[in-house]
Amino acid sequence: MDELPTLPTGRRVKLLNQNDRLFHVIIAQQFDRELIEHLCRIAEMTRAIHDARAGARFLNTVLSHKRAMLYFIQPSTRTFLSFTSACQILGMPYNDVRDTSTSSEVKGETEDDTIRVLSQYFDVIIVRHPQEGFAENMAHMLNAMPRNIPIVNGGSGKDQHPTQALLDIYTLYRNLLPSPLDCLRHDHDHNPFAGKTIAFVGDLKRGRTVRSLSYLLARYPDVRMLFVAPDELQIGEDISAYLDRHDVNYEYKADLKDVIADCDAVYMTRLQDEHDVAGESKNIDLSRFVLTADMADRFRPKLIIMHPLPRRREIDKRLDADPRAKYFDQVRNGMWIRTALMAYLFNADGTILDHYHSYYSY
Amino acid sequence: MDELPTLPTGRRVKLLNQNDRLFHVIIAQQFDRELIEHLCRIAEMTRAIHDARAGARFLNTVLSHKRAMLYFIQPSTRTFLSFTSACQILGMPYNDVRDTSTSSEVKGETEDDTIRVLSQYFDVIIVRHPQEGFAENMAHMLNAMPRNIPIVNGGSGKDQHPTQALLDIYTLYRNLLPSPLDCLRHDHDHNPFAGKTIAFVGDLKRGRTVRSLSYLLARYPDVRMLFVAPDELQIGEDISAYLDRHDVNYEYKADLKDVIADCDAVYMTRLQDEHDVAGESKNIDLSRFVLTADMADRFRPKLIIMHPLPRRREIDKRLDADPRAKYFDQVRNGMWIRTALMAYLFNADGTILDHYHSYYSY
Amino acid sequence: MDELPTLPTGRRVKLLNQNDRLFHVIIAQQFDRELIEHLCRIAEMTRAIHDARAGARFLNTVLSHKRAMLYFIQPSTRTFLSFTSACQILGMPYNDVRDTSTSSEVKGETEDDTIRVLSQYFDVIIVRHPQEGFAENMAHMLNAMPRNIPIVNGGSGKDQHPTQALLDIYTLYRNLLPSPLDCLRHDHDHNPFAGKTIAFVGDLKRGRTVRSLSYLLARYPDVRMLFVAPDELQIGEDISAYLDRHDVNYEYKADLKDVIADCDAVYMTRLQDEHDVAGESKNIDLSRFVLTADMADRFRPKLIIMHPLPRRREIDKRLDADPRAKYFDQVRNGMWIRTALMAYLFNADGTILDHYHSYYSY
Repeated sequence: MDELPTLPTGRRVKLLNQNDRLFHVIIAQQFDRELIEHLCRIAEMTRAIHDARAGARFLNTVLSHKRAMLYFIQPSTRTFLSFTSACQILGMPYNDVRDTSTSSEVKGETEDDTIRVLSQYFDVIIVRHPQEGFAENMAHMLNAMPRNIPIVNGGSGKDQHPTQALLDIYTLYRNLLPSPLDCLRHDHDHNPFAGKTIAFVGDLKRGRTVRSLSYLLARYPDVRMLFVAPDELQIGEDISAYLDRHDVNYEYKADLKDVIADCDAVYMTRLQDEHDVAGESKNIDLSRFVLTADMADRFRPKLIIMHPLPRRREIDKRLDADPRAKYFDQVRNGMWIRTALMAYLFNADGTILDHYHSYYSY
Repeated sequence: MDELPTLPTGRRVKLLNQNDRLFHVIIAQQFDRELIEHLCRIAEMTRAIHDARAGARFLNTVLSHKRAMLYFIQPSTRTFLSFTSACQILGMPYNDVRDTSTSSEVKGETEDDTIRVLSQYFDVIIVRHPQEGFAENMAHMLNAMPRNIPIVNGGSGKDQHPTQALLDIYTLYRNLLPSPLDCLRHDHDHNPFAGKTIAFVGDLKRGRTVRSLSYLLARYPDVRMLFVAPDELQIGEDISAYLDRHDVNYEYKADLKDVIADCDAVYMTRLQDEHDVAGESKNIDLSRFVLTADMADRFRPKLIIMHPLPRRREIDKRLDADPRAKYFDQVRNGMWIRTALMAYLFNADGTILDHYHSYYSY
Repeated sequence: MDELPTLPTGRRVKLLNQNDRLFHVIIAQQFDRELIEHLCRIAEMTRAIHDARAGARFLNTVLSHKRAMLYFIQPSTRTFLSFTSACQILGMPYNDVRDTSTSSEVKGETEDDTIRVLSQYFDVIIVRHPQEGFAENMAHMLNAMPRNIPIVNGGSGKDQHPTQALLDIYTLYRNLLPSPLDCLRHDHDHNPFAGKTIAFVGDLKRGRTVRSLSYLLARYPDVRMLFVAPDELQIGEDISAYLDRHDVNYEYKADLKDVIADCDAVYMTRLQDEHDVAGESKNIDLSRFVLTADMADRFRPKLIIMHPLPRRREIDKRLDADPRAKYFDQVRNGMWIRTALMAYLFNADGTILDHYHSYYSY
């Protein structure tokens, strides 16, 4: 794994355990290419195992001795249900705190104390929080406690959403490779992103999924990234500086229709106007950042159309029936890659790998 | 199974799977007498199996490889807990969406997209919704998706509540037959409703449980139905037309005390004033539609007193201790019949039947 | 067990089952020393068993045939998650009712009917309620129903919180005894509280945890209790009368710094101003009831610092790193003692005891 990046606050939070294995999952930069491919492999095996009823029952026992807390203070259905589905598939009981109005916080407790209390009951805390840096702060605090457990960032502030980036790259792997099972090969050294053009479209400034995915793609030489956005919503300078440092080929673009014919994948995003301070995005013209049905005749035959969802009008609904539309597949891929991640966090990826090899030729 | 009825919207939604087995559960008309009795039988076996600890553990594995979503946008405790208890008994993990304020809908997502996303995570979606026809619309939409999963109507609009009708008829079976176990017999051809009088009392216009149960009872020759309600709240003409088409003997009545002595079962309901448009039901005199304690000396010895609950003042609380009061039994019966339905939907009714025959003489 | 005390309402509610075993858990007075030690022993064994993955899986089956309802109408995160964690550890599915706005109560149902309905679905109901005496009233009501199930008081009104008292005394046992495992010995007749001084500090009038723990400690001869509180918030006369009747040595104190050097344990509590009628506690000077960092040089070497949490400023955060601070341990102890209690209620404590003796020398 690469050197551990300095976190936004300037503090260096220890994110690995004593065996140099992932412990807290906070930012996309923690995932190098080897780990990404390992998790894709485990995800792919898990879904194959799950297809058989006996396999589903085996998976049900993998983490039945651990329990998870979902501390989801920011509204979310999709990510919440993706993580809880992953827990259920692995037989890991969980509980959640979603509404602080029923919590001890109304009695004047600090959030530090709340997380410390939760760490007494559970074996991992998955957090989603409006405040930037929340996940890393809690990881830092727990590192000093006698009972330390992993923090997994399920999306904090405008910052990052590392597990969304994992599901996005897993979706790309499944569609760019000749066969989705190719990412299972241990001896794999093919770079599926070499020579590929991936366009990110919409509110790139505040869409944390694009930010996180950019960090992952920077691991792959010869990928070409297009940031297609109005000036006011272009990708942040921290990202472009990172891409420069890693010699990634990227360009800014101002109209989707000019580039759609060149894309191997197009990643659409919605306007994140809940982050507006004073309705400033109301007057932005978004018409050049919509994937319309009449663009379809210029789509490449194997174009991968992605969207982190929820969507508004960035994608014409008439495209839903196009087999190149992968945004609902992404949802299901997210469940499997998070299943792989949870298994990995508790050192149970080996159990899944062994089971797969016992039952499936490969 | 009878011809599939045309659904209220005029659309014909495919409700069966390729083996002509129940797939989406939307309306009571989908259940014919054979299927009703089969589900009662499975329910009865399930509760017998569950009595022993080893049996409860066997049931815990029956659907442990499937997962359920309860999309309950309309307030409900009873139906929600009945379905979740059924899931728990069968070992089927579930999750719920109950409050759209924590969901993606606040970010502008359509409900179609929400259901499509949920279909990626789960194996069945049980819906309860204020909007009439919601369940069938979602079934229709999913039928066109690569990943199609069953929709179960847990109560939509003023329309129908098919699983409540199943629990009601299961309650009647358990009490009308000489022994509750009689509905277990495969060679059963006795019509327990022949010559029986069943009174429906209260807000019949808007009580969807009465509407749904009427459809089921229309399957049985020689049943006599009394609709006891103020004119403004009488049963809908769509129901009476249906009963006419099926030659069912029914009468309108305006005072419960005139008919109570003739009843084999009395099905009480509350005023559904949450459906009032302008408080129009406030001035309706309901005094003739209350089951009072002083009627008890005219009750038949085996009268079955039912209520879908919650109740207000339609039943005098002094009757609660009367062994003929079956409204709390109904609640528990609902859990078992829904357990049977879920098992049936996933083709696991045979597993329960086999287990029963291996362990119980019968 | 001692004679069953008369409950606050004056009614005598039957709390034992036909084998004179605990059935409803309503008040701390139900627990005598023998039962307290038995539960501590089961809790200690359970956590030892859980340490091994195979042990955790064994525990997962102990109550998999039962199901629990948490009826938590009063806000609570800590107690809720403690009970649900206990359920999860024992493999017991549960569900909850926390927000009456989604329940049938909006349709005009009485809370009696709600609990009766819940009793049809579940095997135990754990209640937390703002109304004093709610748990005992529900126990009384269910005792008259054909299907009677245990009620467990998870905190009602300003009255009592018996399971919090159990976790507090379990924490004391673990820290007062030379080895925490000593409370496992069957032949144990040592009184760990003999000659010990325990100070209760803060809002003793309305802190139900202190009230409940006082009842338990009154079971142990030669304990000395200090009630350190402003006059307006001193412990209730019902408690002092109870202690007088049981010859317990207790004193009232007005400043923590005067007594801290004498304490073997100090039990800090927060101001319960949510019970204020007209902001009457706003003007109370609490400065003499704070555990400050500069008191640390007068702490006894084995002082036990406790707090039921959530805390405000009663404990200086700089003390958190002191190994004598046990308030986060208390949280985890609560999970284990509630696990023991749930196992006991369903007669599964013997299963745990047998498992422990088969696998651990002792």
